[in-house]
Amino acid sequence: MCVTRFVFLFHPFPVGQTDRLCVSVPIRRAAMAEHLSQSELDYPFKLLEYFNGFRVSKVIFSACELGVFDLLLKSHEALSAQRVAQELGTSVDGMERLLDALVGIEILEVEREKGTALYSSTDVANLYLAKGSAKSLHDMIVYQSQTIYPLWNNMADAVREGRNQYEKTFGLPSDDVFQAIYRSEEEMLKFMGLMNSSWVLDGHDVVTAFDLSRFQRIVDLGGCTGALANEIVKAYPASNVTVFDLPEVIAAAQRHFCLEDNRVAFQSGDFFRGEIPTADLYVLARIVHDWSEEKCLALLKRIYETCKPGGGVLLVEALLFENRRGPLMVQIFSLNMLVQAEGRERSPSEYINMLNKSGFCNVQVCRTGKSYDAILAIR
Amino acid sequence: MCVTRFVFLFHPFPVGQTDRLCVSVPIRRAAMAEHLSQSELDYPFKLLEYFNGFRVSKVIFSACELGVFDLLLKSHEALSAQRVAQELGTSVDGMERLLDALVGIEILEVEREKGTALYSSTDVANLYLAKGSAKSLHDMIVYQSQTIYPLWNNMADAVREGRNQYEKTFGLPSDDVFQAIYRSEEEMLKFMGLMNSSWVLDGHDVVTAFDLSRFQRIVDLGGCTGALANEIVKAYPASNVTVFDLPEVIAAAQRHFCLEDNRVAFQSGDFFRGEIPTADLYVLARIVHDWSEEKCLALLKRIYETCKPGGGVLLVEALLFENRRGPLMVQIFSLNMLVQAEGRERSPSEYINMLNKSGFCNVQVCRTGKSYDAILAIR
Repeated sequence: MCVTRFVFLFHPFPVGQTDRLCVSVPIRRAAMAEHLSQSELDYPFKLLEYFNGFRVSKVIFSACELGVFDLLLKSHEALSAQRVAQELGTSVDGMERLLDALVGIEILEVEREKGTALYSSTDVANLYLAKGSAKSLHDMIVYQSQTIYPLWNNMADAVREGRNQYEKTFGLPSDDVFQAIYRSEEEMLKFMGLMNSSWVLDGHDVVTAFDLSRFQRIVDLGGCTGALANEIVKAYPASNVTVFDLPEVIAAAQRHFCLEDNRVAFQSGDFFRGEIPTADLYVLARIVHDWSEEKCLALLKRIYETCKPGGGVLLVEALLFENRRGPLMVQIFSLNMLVQAEGRERSPSEYINMLNKSGFCNVQVCRTGKSYDAILAIR
Repeated sequence: MCVTRFVFLFHPFPVGQTDRLCVSVPIRRAAMAEHLSQSELDYPFKLLEYFNGFRVSKVIFSACELGVFDLLLKSHEALSAQRVAQELGTSVDGMERLLDALVGIEILEVEREKGTALYSSTDVANLYLAKGSAKSLHDMIVYQSQTIYPLWNNMADAVREGRNQYEKTFGLPSDDVFQAIYRSEEEMLKFMGLMNSSWVLDGHDVVTAFDLSRFQRIVDLGGCTGALANEIVKAYPASNVTVFDLPEVIAAAQRHFCLEDNRVAFQSGDFFRGEIPTADLYVLARIVHDWSEEKCLALLKRIYETCKPGGGVLLVEALLFENRRGPLMVQIFSLNMLVQAEGRERSPSEYINMLNKSGFCNVQVCRTGKSYDAILAIR
């Protein structure tokens, strides 16, 4: 459960005050930006690291795509570069350089035996980078590598034009974001894999940010693969969750991301247009950040109207600080929304304003200190 | 001058011994890989930072390409996002997100005045990221953003195939690397800008790694814009340097990178085929790493034959540790050579072996602790 909880009733605190409160928790999340001290003026070590950030990402992504971590997990012994290359059908020279860089990042280990370097995996790689593990981020990596990395190549144009870059990057029309994201079954599954990895990692923290045990019937709007629903029923055994999403997503979720829990059901529909199922609690996890304020207000008002007194809505998003100085990861997510969607990341007061305008008055905010935070609003 | 200098005569030290010596200096360069500790198993904060590395790079690159740092340097006051957007012809929303992320990275500063966020530059941004400054890395950034970033999108294929990715990335034939790099005047100038930035930053350290004052006539083979030549004549006022490069490079260097120092001359030719000018010292700065061992040996033998006793060759390269465990930046450069050239980064003993095979016996190695190191071999 969250130790620091801020209760906003009717009107949020003045900016200065929320700032102090909000900054208190997520020290870890600001660590990405170590202070660029004056010593950079002598030699820009830190700046050069930032320039090389894309290469570090791609070292890990490429190894993941080539199956390096899966092979090393399955292998019962440390393997030479030649052996890894042979098993994965790559050049020996290229694989050797890749493995060495992974040792440099401390994701793999190396030892020398009779002059041959033998590589083995680490607990961290086995847990997050291999495909089969319970906390695998494999699908997140594939999506970042194959979709988000190329989109970010056009970030300067995204800033110039103020809109997503599907057209320049993939030759796709950019008006309907989810038509672009779901442009083929393969692409839809990749995106669903991203969402799935994400809740496997962060789901438990966001659903336990508040005590949700009083809500029995829960609907996860845009619930995708059901990964978050799964975390909800694990944390609240008396609850049942309906995953509500577009028909093609529900079909793919049932085909490819099988959940064998009779407390999780799937229902297809369009939360902007069709009827929203009755529930005690509505979950919107990384939904609001996709859209303009206008569309968000329309959606939140529809939920408010369906919601009974005492019922609520749980927003799961990465929260900016009120003073906009961080967290860096969330500022970067907001640029990601620019290049990939129609929305943006927001500060607690922005979400509270939208919830207030939609009719929800009793709003609580909880920062988890990890990637995603939670906001609970009660009708 | 370099404080730790290792003298290798005839045969390098056995691997174990050079390891210990080589690892002693560049602690700063290994800092990029903070230890991936067991705490990552609870939550992979560091791993997620690595995944986001490409986005941090592109935040800085995009701001540089849009002219943000140039505008803020010239401005005498802090500017609002609206004003920056207006001056640079971008969307306000996109620019605001970009500026906020740059504040998160601590490359810009922000203050609030009457509710409006006003952004200003920092000493670090003024020195390295603005275009006009003496230590500007602007051209390095443009090349990394527009050429190297897209090439790295095909890193998995580079490892698979063991060769550069000009064809898949830019639709270019990949057999002649420099034909691809110099595919147009514009591209040639971008590459030359990269080299120029690089020696503006690291040139002084590599030319003072050894006392070169005994060499009067110096030829910088593949000397490109003359930036390194310029650092040599600054450090050794009695020297004169001939910048030797392909005819089109020399023409562009004289047209676009004017050096008004009569101790620096330009001469065109092909060091693999044509005659090499007479000199007391030959400099090969980031040349050997472009090529296969076979081509490097051919080049070094040609230099050895032209060189008089007492004359020498200075190799400037980023050196791997003997045990291949780092520095991470150099391991990554070596993958860069895979995706972009024919060569690789090497350890001191590999360079020493090549120099020995070419006839040079008296070889000294100096790590600078920065991005590039130096090896001096005397005939």
